[in-house]
Amino acid sequence: MVVPLSRAMKILGIEHVAVAVADLEEPVRVFNQLLGLQDGGSEEVPDQQVITHIFDTGRGKVELLQATGPGSPVSRFIAKKGPGIHHIAFLVDDLPAWLRHLEQQGVELIDRDPRRGAGGYLIAFLHPRSTAGILVELCQKP
Amino acid sequence: MVVPLSRAMKILGIEHVAVAVADLEEPVRVFNQLLGLQDGGSEEVPDQQVITHIFDTGRGKVELLQATGPGSPVSRFIAKKGPGIHHIAFLVDDLPAWLRHLEQQGVELIDRDPRRGAGGYLIAFLHPRSTAGILVELCQKP
Repeated sequence: MVVPLSRAMKILGIEHVAVAVADLEEPVRVFNQLLGLQDGGSEEVPDQQVITHIFDTGRGKVELLQATGPGSPVSRFIAKKGPGIHHIAFLVDDLPAWLRHLEQQGVELIDRDPRRGAGGYLIAFLHPRSTAGILVELCQKP
Repeated sequence: MVVPLSRAMKILGIEHVAVAVADLEEPVRVFNQLLGLQDGGSEEVPDQQVITHIFDTGRGKVELLQATGPGSPVSRFIAKKGPGIHHIAFLVDDLPAWLRHLEQQGVELIDRDPRRGAGGYLIAFLHPRSTAGILVELCQKP
C-alpha cells in the first residue's frame, strides 16, 4: 500500500531533461543557434565524470552531458543505448524528506542522501528498477 | 550561416517529455502514486499507433507512450534501444512559422506541416539527423 504524500511534498516541475551526447559541439549549436534557447554555458561535474552544458527554456532546462572518462555513467549509457535522452529531473522543495518518503515506500535509491550537482543543486537519483526503467533525478534549488 | 530567429519566435518551455514503455501499468503507478503527479488519463492516438498517458507537473508533462501495433514508432524505438525516454517536446506559439524557419535553415523535418497530436495540440517532429540525434517535437496549444 502506497502511503499518500504529505501536503508539503509536491513535484514542482520538470527541472531539466538530460541528454547523453558523444560530443557537445553539434548539439550545442542545435539548441543555441537553431532553437534559440538561452545558453547557460558548460560546467564540469567531476563526481559524475561529465561536462554539462545547460540551456534554459524558462520552463525546464535541457542539460547536455558529455563524458570525461570511460567510467562515467554517460559513457556506459552511450555504449549500451547510443546517444539520447538520459534522465528526467523533477524539482522538489524538500529533497531529504522525499528520499525518506520514497525509501519507506520501498523505492531503491541510487543516492540515499542528497549530493551536489551542477549549479550547486542538491540532487539524488532513484534507481530505474523502482521507476519502471526510467532514470529519475529529484533536485532542490541551492 | 544561421539566420537569427524573429522576435516572435521563442521556445516557451518544455511541454512534455515522452517515455516509451512496454506496458503502461507499472509506470502509471510510479508517476501517479509514488511521485504524486496529476494524472491526466489515457488517450489513443491512432495516427501514431500509441496510447498516451499524461502526467502534469504544472511545469512540463510526462507523456508515457505504449505502442498499439508493431508498426508504431514506439515499438521500433523499444526494439532498438529498450524502454526509455523517447523525445522532448517544446511549446511554441506559431508552429507553421517555426517549420518554415527551420526548413530554410536546412533542418530535415519529419512533419513539414503540423498535424494533430494528443489533446488536440498541433505537433511536428524534427528529424534527429538535424538535431544531433535527439528526437525533438515542437507543439502548439490547440
